[in-house]
Amino acid sequence: MRNEKLGPTAALAEFIASTTYARLPEFVVRESKRCILDFLGVALGAVGTAAPNIALEEVRAAGGNPQATVLGYGDRVAVAQAALVDGILSHVLDFDDTHVVTILHGSAPTLSAALPLGEWRGASGRDLILAHALGFEAGARVSLAVWPDHYDVGWHMTGTAGTICAAAAVASLLGLGADRTVHALGLAATQAAGHREQFGAMAKSFHAGKAAANGVLAAQLAARGYTAAPESLEGRRGLFHVMSARSDPEAVTRELGERWEIARNGFKPFACGVVTHPAIDVARRLRERGVAADEIERIDLRVHPLVLELCGKRDVATGLEGKFSVSYCVAVMLLEGAARHRQFTDDLAARTDVRELARKVHAVADAGMASTEAVGVCALGDGREVTEHVAAATGTPGNPISDDELRAKFLDLAAPQVGAAVGEEIVDLVEHLESAASLAPLVALTEARGVSAA
Amino acid sequence: MRNEKLGPTAALAEFIASTTYARLPEFVVRESKRCILDFLGVALGAVGTAAPNIALEEVRAAGGNPQATVLGYGDRVAVAQAALVDGILSHVLDFDDTHVVTILHGSAPTLSAALPLGEWRGASGRDLILAHALGFEAGARVSLAVWPDHYDVGWHMTGTAGTICAAAAVASLLGLGADRTVHALGLAATQAAGHREQFGAMAKSFHAGKAAANGVLAAQLAARGYTAAPESLEGRRGLFHVMSARSDPEAVTRELGERWEIARNGFKPFACGVVTHPAIDVARRLRERGVAADEIERIDLRVHPLVLELCGKRDVATGLEGKFSVSYCVAVMLLEGAARHRQFTDDLAARTDVRELARKVHAVADAGMASTEAVGVCALGDGREVTEHVAAATGTPGNPISDDELRAKFLDLAAPQVGAAVGEEIVDLVEHLESAASLAPLVALTEARGVSAA
Repeated sequence: MRNEKLGPTAALAEFIASTTYARLPEFVVRESKRCILDFLGVALGAVGTAAPNIALEEVRAAGGNPQATVLGYGDRVAVAQAALVDGILSHVLDFDDTHVVTILHGSAPTLSAALPLGEWRGASGRDLILAHALGFEAGARVSLAVWPDHYDVGWHMTGTAGTICAAAAVASLLGLGADRTVHALGLAATQAAGHREQFGAMAKSFHAGKAAANGVLAAQLAARGYTAAPESLEGRRGLFHVMSARSDPEAVTRELGERWEIARNGFKPFACGVVTHPAIDVARRLRERGVAADEIERIDLRVHPLVLELCGKRDVATGLEGKFSVSYCVAVMLLEGAARHRQFTDDLAARTDVRELARKVHAVADAGMASTEAVGVCALGDGREVTEHVAAATGTPGNPISDDELRAKFLDLAAPQVGAAVGEEIVDLVEHLESAASLAPLVALTEARGVSAA
Repeated sequence: MRNEKLGPTAALAEFIASTTYARLPEFVVRESKRCILDFLGVALGAVGTAAPNIALEEVRAAGGNPQATVLGYGDRVAVAQAALVDGILSHVLDFDDTHVVTILHGSAPTLSAALPLGEWRGASGRDLILAHALGFEAGARVSLAVWPDHYDVGWHMTGTAGTICAAAAVASLLGLGADRTVHALGLAATQAAGHREQFGAMAKSFHAGKAAANGVLAAQLAARGYTAAPESLEGRRGLFHVMSARSDPEAVTRELGERWEIARNGFKPFACGVVTHPAIDVARRLRERGVAADEIERIDLRVHPLVLELCGKRDVATGLEGKFSVSYCVAVMLLEGAARHRQFTDDLAARTDVRELARKVHAVADAGMASTEAVGVCALGDGREVTEHVAAATGTPGNPISDDELRAKFLDLAAPQVGAAVGEEIVDLVEHLESAASLAPLVALTEARGVSAA
């Protein structure tokens, strides 16, 4: 392909500037639409929670021209402000989609930037699908280039590569040429930030919001002629070298436009750290086999090492902390038969039966396990032992969520905000998004009633 | 002291929350006022240049409540927007002050956040001095904790630690207690960004602007109850570990409140990379000794290794690139007798005599040289050799700029914008800033006439 002689930054810019909707493979269009529906659901499900409420208070105090709509709340604010709040909204439940190779949650920053920008600029449904496909691809490839060292040292991919996602999506929507897209990517790269230290604090969802807002700013400044270095990704003092001990710059360009990373994106059936999902599937199967919570003496889990690193927390005080505790997640699935956002409340985290069952869950790391895999051995009061082995957790590419399941998840999240009927309308609109001349009808449907942060 | 048992993040927050103006040593007040004057000069001198013009265009398009004034331009915008443009303004000439140990340009992000926030909140002159002293100290100590690995790998201190500067200053002005200041510092730490790859592009000054705006956002969100991790600096996945191969967390707390890093801050006499300054002093002395540019055959320089790493560029196409070329800097000092911002124009960079003389300058790295030191041997056409050795460059703590020189630099920069008389008024106001009940009169004086970005 013609990009072979360009460096990663220039090649990515050329790819973003030159790819049209007509050139997207059909499965990319389909997956992008699934991402858009899931994004809207996880965002609407979070309306009224503390983190987006606070961010919106600050946005209201700062003020801004009424360019675009904040999802769910209905405020009309400047694009970057809507991107900030939408990003927090769509990530705060820890329920958004995941590029399973690099744990990048790509759609939250991509769409939190692209939806308000597209609304403001009168973009079509096809424009939004294209912006999502390109933004996701750009961020996922930057993630691959620095994976795993970048993540291992403590960077939050969704904050760092998420900024690239957002800038690429906005560059596509603004129709920047390749030259200005180089600057947009550079201004995004040099803003990339977010530490895993913040997992469990409101600052985690802030990363997705800032990635979106910073990506908007990067592309908008580039559109006006603001400049960045030509090799902001691969340069000696650029993102790859500065932010990762080792990197593979060619991961950006390898089969670019031929192989699409969205094929390795998964949707979460459970509202918590993605690495806990195989263990939750084990718990779900135990429950389906008739194991009752009150007869459990002990559960021994073998899990991928990242589970304990990210979600090894045993003493859970809040619902938010529960999202990062595999013991808590397994306990609520066994007790409640679900691990959706209603299972991660402070009330549930304080309940005695949850706390007691969680203490019976003992997970050990096994480097031989895949990240989608878990084995559980459950000892019961009558001396029996029940074993379950999950090879590919629900929602991973090897075991994808069906369209029906994705719709059910969306409606479960969105209906309390917009009502079931409007929820169904949104599903229908997104399923035919390539026919939408404008994003305005979709945005209008997402305005939840009677919710206010102030 | 009572902070001994607190970790760095908590101790720094406690220090910021508990330190009052009355507890500032007299020299800290004096140096902070010098920083404020110099900051205003380098910002006003940059009004109308491309980078702040473009950023302001974007701010105008986004809109915002009229909380604070953009320096020089006079636009009334939201605090974080003013912080963004002021940060770009005050760093774009590469003429702002420098913490000589870590090459942090601390006052640009600190004051770009504190001045608009203080204006909005009706702060007094003492409040601003205190905010500057604390913001500078906080950022300089975070810089020290990660120096030199953080910088060496390619982080731009002014972008990264600058975010801490800004958040700390704003936390002080908002009167946040220690608990919320922990969150403000955490939200700042997890936004810290900026790569040295961007040196020479507009993105470099963007780092200072984003540091200021992000620090404002961090402290304002924390004031509203947004949370971050308790050990955002020293935690296992926090700033120190993630952003530096090695760190010295105790650099934050060692003699905190007893030893002030502002004592190691310097003011630039020359409008270019601070590491070039000893070599420019060599050129100034050669000129003072009567060496004429047209009799020079060759100049051999021995310099600190960072000079070549940062400013080794030999083929200079623009004035901006000239700021990062020690050969160019030495040539313009010899030809023009100055290295102020007027010596870094594209016209001068294209001039034949400048280009020819720059090619005669040969610098070699010498690890035995201090960063404030340079030796030059100048070979003349008649066979003579003239040697100069500068041990402590002008503007470094060992050879500080006098108040008179600082005033002259300020007036040289500010007078073309605000006029000489108003410039003198600003000097007078800043010299007695501790008596000012409000920042409004000072801000009003900085509004340059007849300059517009649109």
